[in-house]
Amino acid sequence: MGTQLDNLAIELPSWAFGNSGTRFKVFGTPGTPRAVQEKIADAATVHRFTGLAPTVALHIPWDTVDDYRSLAGYAEEHGVKLGTINSNTFQDDDYKFGSLTHTDKTVRQKAIDHHLACIEVMNETGSRDLKIWLADGTNYPGQGDIRGRQERLAESLNTIYQRIGDDQRLVLEYKFFEPAMYMTDVPDWGTSYAHTLALGERAMVCLDTGHHAPGTNIEFIVAQLLRLQKLGSFDFNSRFYADDDLIVGAADPFQLFRIMFEVLRGGGLDDGSPVAFMLDQCHNVEAKIPGQIRSVLNVQEMATRAALVDVEALTVAQEAGDVLDANEVLMDAFYTDVRPRLAQWRTEHGLPANPMSAFAESGYQTTIDAERVGGTQSSWGA
Amino acid sequence: MGTQLDNLAIELPSWAFGNSGTRFKVFGTPGTPRAVQEKIADAATVHRFTGLAPTVALHIPWDTVDDYRSLAGYAEEHGVKLGTINSNTFQDDDYKFGSLTHTDKTVRQKAIDHHLACIEVMNETGSRDLKIWLADGTNYPGQGDIRGRQERLAESLNTIYQRIGDDQRLVLEYKFFEPAMYMTDVPDWGTSYAHTLALGERAMVCLDTGHHAPGTNIEFIVAQLLRLQKLGSFDFNSRFYADDDLIVGAADPFQLFRIMFEVLRGGGLDDGSPVAFMLDQCHNVEAKIPGQIRSVLNVQEMATRAALVDVEALTVAQEAGDVLDANEVLMDAFYTDVRPRLAQWRTEHGLPANPMSAFAESGYQTTIDAERVGGTQSSWGA
Amino acid sequence: MGTQLDNLAIELPSWAFGNSGTRFKVFGTPGTPRAVQEKIADAATVHRFTGLAPTVALHIPWDTVDDYRSLAGYAEEHGVKLGTINSNTFQDDDYKFGSLTHTDKTVRQKAIDHHLACIEVMNETGSRDLKIWLADGTNYPGQGDIRGRQERLAESLNTIYQRIGDDQRLVLEYKFFEPAMYMTDVPDWGTSYAHTLALGERAMVCLDTGHHAPGTNIEFIVAQLLRLQKLGSFDFNSRFYADDDLIVGAADPFQLFRIMFEVLRGGGLDDGSPVAFMLDQCHNVEAKIPGQIRSVLNVQEMATRAALVDVEALTVAQEAGDVLDANEVLMDAFYTDVRPRLAQWRTEHGLPANPMSAFAESGYQTTIDAERVGGTQSSWGA
Amino acid sequence: MGTQLDNLAIELPSWAFGNSGTRFKVFGTPGTPRAVQEKIADAATVHRFTGLAPTVALHIPWDTVDDYRSLAGYAEEHGVKLGTINSNTFQDDDYKFGSLTHTDKTVRQKAIDHHLACIEVMNETGSRDLKIWLADGTNYPGQGDIRGRQERLAESLNTIYQRIGDDQRLVLEYKFFEPAMYMTDVPDWGTSYAHTLALGERAMVCLDTGHHAPGTNIEFIVAQLLRLQKLGSFDFNSRFYADDDLIVGAADPFQLFRIMFEVLRGGGLDDGSPVAFMLDQCHNVEAKIPGQIRSVLNVQEMATRAALVDVEALTVAQEAGDVLDANEVLMDAFYTDVRPRLAQWRTEHGLPANPMSAFAESGYQTTIDAERVGGTQSSWGA
Repeated sequence: MGTQLDNLAIELPSWAFGNSGTRFKVFGTPGTPRAVQEKIADAATVHRFTGLAPTVALHIPWDTVDDYRSLAGYAEEHGVKLGTINSNTFQDDDYKFGSLTHTDKTVRQKAIDHHLACIEVMNETGSRDLKIWLADGTNYPGQGDIRGRQERLAESLNTIYQRIGDDQRLVLEYKFFEPAMYMTDVPDWGTSYAHTLALGERAMVCLDTGHHAPGTNIEFIVAQLLRLQKLGSFDFNSRFYADDDLIVGAADPFQLFRIMFEVLRGGGLDDGSPVAFMLDQCHNVEAKIPGQIRSVLNVQEMATRAALVDVEALTVAQEAGDVLDANEVLMDAFYTDVRPRLAQWRTEHGLPANPMSAFAESGYQTTIDAERVGGTQSSWGA
Repeated sequence: MGTQLDNLAIELPSWAFGNSGTRFKVFGTPGTPRAVQEKIADAATVHRFTGLAPTVALHIPWDTVDDYRSLAGYAEEHGVKLGTINSNTFQDDDYKFGSLTHTDKTVRQKAIDHHLACIEVMNETGSRDLKIWLADGTNYPGQGDIRGRQERLAESLNTIYQRIGDDQRLVLEYKFFEPAMYMTDVPDWGTSYAHTLALGERAMVCLDTGHHAPGTNIEFIVAQLLRLQKLGSFDFNSRFYADDDLIVGAADPFQLFRIMFEVLRGGGLDDGSPVAFMLDQCHNVEAKIPGQIRSVLNVQEMATRAALVDVEALTVAQEAGDVLDANEVLMDAFYTDVRPRLAQWRTEHGLPANPMSAFAESGYQTTIDAERVGGTQSSWGA
Repeated sequence: MGTQLDNLAIELPSWAFGNSGTRFKVFGTPGTPRAVQEKIADAATVHRFTGLAPTVALHIPWDTVDDYRSLAGYAEEHGVKLGTINSNTFQDDDYKFGSLTHTDKTVRQKAIDHHLACIEVMNETGSRDLKIWLADGTNYPGQGDIRGRQERLAESLNTIYQRIGDDQRLVLEYKFFEPAMYMTDVPDWGTSYAHTLALGERAMVCLDTGHHAPGTNIEFIVAQLLRLQKLGSFDFNSRFYADDDLIVGAADPFQLFRIMFEVLRGGGLDDGSPVAFMLDQCHNVEAKIPGQIRSVLNVQEMATRAALVDVEALTVAQEAGDVLDANEVLMDAFYTDVRPRLAQWRTEHGLPANPMSAFAESGYQTTIDAERVGGTQSSWGA
Repeated sequence: MGTQLDNLAIELPSWAFGNSGTRFKVFGTPGTPRAVQEKIADAATVHRFTGLAPTVALHIPWDTVDDYRSLAGYAEEHGVKLGTINSNTFQDDDYKFGSLTHTDKTVRQKAIDHHLACIEVMNETGSRDLKIWLADGTNYPGQGDIRGRQERLAESLNTIYQRIGDDQRLVLEYKFFEPAMYMTDVPDWGTSYAHTLALGERAMVCLDTGHHAPGTNIEFIVAQLLRLQKLGSFDFNSRFYADDDLIVGAADPFQLFRIMFEVLRGGGLDDGSPVAFMLDQCHNVEAKIPGQIRSVLNVQEMATRAALVDVEALTVAQEAGDVLDANEVLMDAFYTDVRPRLAQWRTEHGLPANPMSAFAESGYQTTIDAERVGGTQSSWGA
């Protein structure tokens, strides 16, 4: 295990511990947090069992509190720090037809102000990144003026960016579709790149692994954005169809391996790398805390396999045009079972060799199931 | 306008008049029904302005009432009839891991019993069709036994089918994905066909136009199912990406034209055709009643264009291998503006020439906005 | 290694040893066979190094010879047998607008006669399976009569089926698209199933792993066809986008693992299983013989991993609704490195422990590069 | 018909008049050109009947001649001019593993030199645009170094760009996949944008309407590239699945309408617009010359419909959040049959009212069928 793998840290989203679902049904589960503090406690638990998740991302307003410094202190007491602040401009009735892109200046200003408030939160929590994912888009041809919406988006983003501190960043996420069904205002990496390029150096792109068209070669985009020095962060998850938000690596572990290989190739795990790694998933039918544990383990496992690639041999085969050899060098790393060496790494770091079974045996879930009775379980709505 | 077009009748789903949305947000609107009676009143309004929507589909339990005969009478007073009964096995906590396919016999029996109760409703309402759309499926490889689930599904369906009356039908809908993200138990027409074939003659396939993989040639499936005498019904809507549930014809009017051409080709609008036409859409950001009006007009308009195809000339070109001529014969019909002749048809039938503007001017919306205050607006949850 | 894995035999297509490419370019390589005998010699070489490929599929007319019994003898001398006979109704000018579906009876009869000739070849070679893949389809809406083409297809297939011997089978392959760009006459498993069902018991479905819409859950189809007792054979390859015809397992090894798991689950490798396993790939940029070696090794490797699944533990987790446990049981098998035990199995069977390096060191390629000079290299055209 | 529509001119590709096909088969047709002069004559015929196609794009080396000034004169005699020069780095054995991206400096230099030679041709023909479409990419994970290939691509492009004249442009086309099946070096507009941005003002993006992932909203990209002032040209065609290269507008006329609406919205048909319109199609099963006539008519027809959109009313509806009204304003233009007014426009311009039937009656095809006997028909290979 080299330095790069020791650098691997995966931020957990507070909302992964709340209930989530599809438009058809949200299934609740015992032990679900009722407040941000309980989410942080759960996230800290994931870190305690894995050593991989030292920070927690907040979502405003879902995680709104009166005193963010106090919340930051609460987190540190539990062994984690507060991380990225995620804004929300998709759950207020005013945003039905757009937020930063809305034709109505009042609505745009409201959305801008929300982001400025998020920056205030960041100043309190010490967060570096403001992550903007916009639900803005339209459902029907003609519903909106595609070009005009881009102009307004650029202007709104610029207003927000002016308030980003010197040590802070604005990270702009793109998404192929959903909730907009015809046109999404930031649908692809090119759009996110064009906007962040116009904004300036502290604006970066966020790549969510579930936000692409069918068949998209994601590791290519990873390599390209690293090359262009605009890859700010990852939202990890996996998918078979759309934005399924499944556990990262569950749908296609080989794809995750290839992504992590390009991350390593492009310096994304080097000391001082600008790339932030984060989960963004929904545990609709599986247990949430072990779902997050499984997720960070999957990223670590595939990063470890990717680090095994014999790059020298790979280069020789590539330059010789030996397709089968080159592929075999890569696959040899992927097919190597790294679980024993990761168990050893954990033991060396004072962590349980098998975090999944250690958590199951810890009694944590039983305790919170018993304790968290009454109140309203957290979900995407609150 | 020939007999086939006069035969066109499109059933409206009661739930289209309630609120709907995405997993991110459901936007409410003034005037939304609070009860099934108000949904029926709205559906009847669509029929009054278009002459195209004489029946209303119910969804159990969303539209549960104590007295269905009385509800049928209420509908008839408003000028419409009750139609298809749609079951729901996706919103009860027991169904988290399946309904008719569940490993637990108790849960399967509960789901079967729900369908038997739906048949009881049908007996009261005089409905012909029991439509079964299952959310059953799994999110992760390994989560379920694909093969075992099929066996249980076959057995459950058979139990239900035994209770279908001689003049009733079981219509089995398929869907590519969602809410299940890895494996869906009835994902394609082949599966629906295999099961309905095993059940018997009164079991048919329901084709929802939004439930296919990207690129699927839907008119081919229409032609094939008509040929196999297993096309029981359509759920109309349109899509750009997934199951977007947009207004039928909005995303790709040419596709709707091609579908209606195969319907005509295959006798789907002949007297005595077994094919039922229905909408299944979500009006998330547009007004609901005019959204439904627009939808039935779109189907009528594309059916009318399809009926204009000079089949004789088309056959000549096809048999001559004259690709461009054959295509031009088809396109000539598609490119013909049939709106004037449809306006005339409406006038002849005592309907407003322009149903959209007539509805807008009717004051109906203003009235319900004012009247329907208080109570809980209907949505997918109720 | 159990009986099921010992039953694994993968037929090689003669055409994999000839040149292939895209519509943009076919790159030739030294050592490419000039005649079917050289293809068989290469295929036998794959078997000699792997013990996995005891039969070779022929393609008529690419592999036409005067004396098939003699060719069968030639094959046996090289240690392999002749297998499936593949027909070709896509390279004659007469088939521009269809073969078995053509509106012109003369063309249909020509295509039928070709298949009857193939059956004659089967009678000489002792082949069991006649595999029919049709390029039939249309490029433009209106070009053909979808419904009429199905009727003609059914009739043509039936005529052919009547000549299939008692110990022979007709295997009907489906394909999503290509070379037809708008409508393909056998586009999905449902169509293939409906036709083979109508034909009779000796008609089966061929599943080519590259012939599906994006996102299709192939292992579901495998499970379903096995359940319906209509899975006749596999054409193995892999894909990222369309019918890429890459080495099986190269694009998504986890998918291949899941497919092989359903094969095992459904008895597809039991003694007497009706399922034939075959490759159908194009080695456009990689070396052909080691490309085939790699392919059969990939199938064996994923079958071996699939056989490691602790089915009992899996069932317990599935029935308990423990999604993460169930998934972990499956993944544990997938993540296990079976290469050492396969090396041992090979040694025990008198095979080289590492077939790839053994082939490279064997000098076979150098020999054929030197010997096969002059003549015309085989390709899809001949 | 306003100025914008009078500005519409669609360049024809010389290769559309030669034979083309799929990897399975190329069907030849009578009358197919044997040399570039005959291709130009056919292209000029399309212009003579439509008034829409005043220039012809050449492909080097398929259209290589000794004297390009003389060829330009030949074209002018026939009433057309020579247009874009298209390079070819995909049919030489040296390019099997890449051209501008190749690891071998010799091969890269060869590919660069080919482009410099193309610039020499441009200097002779007076062409403005050098269009670069690269087949570069890989078929297997590991085969190439994604990142390194980008660096070499950037360097190679820059070398070429330095030789582009002050009145010339380098136009970089992107493509989702094919012929590369795993990774394509210029797969999306973002990549093309990033490279052309780095090169300079005379480097622009070429958008081929068939080169996107399934579901991609192409009109969004049109609007975005126009906004970024980097939309250099279109390659028009249409598709149902992959890069089907069907007649533009054939697969989805409504999409073409939306694209042309964004072109108009963004000034793409204004006087002095930098956007070049071009076809890039394959007439595999339909007649070639009328196929091109149909294509330019389709573009004109959809542009004309798009110009009918009542933009003022559209803006009012958009700003009011009236989704249905906005959509109806757009659809009203799409559903209007503009064929009569286009027939009139043609008559006014001394063109046949119906170019398709006028061509059929002209006897041109019969003449060339008779005259063009012997020699080798042109195709992609020559």
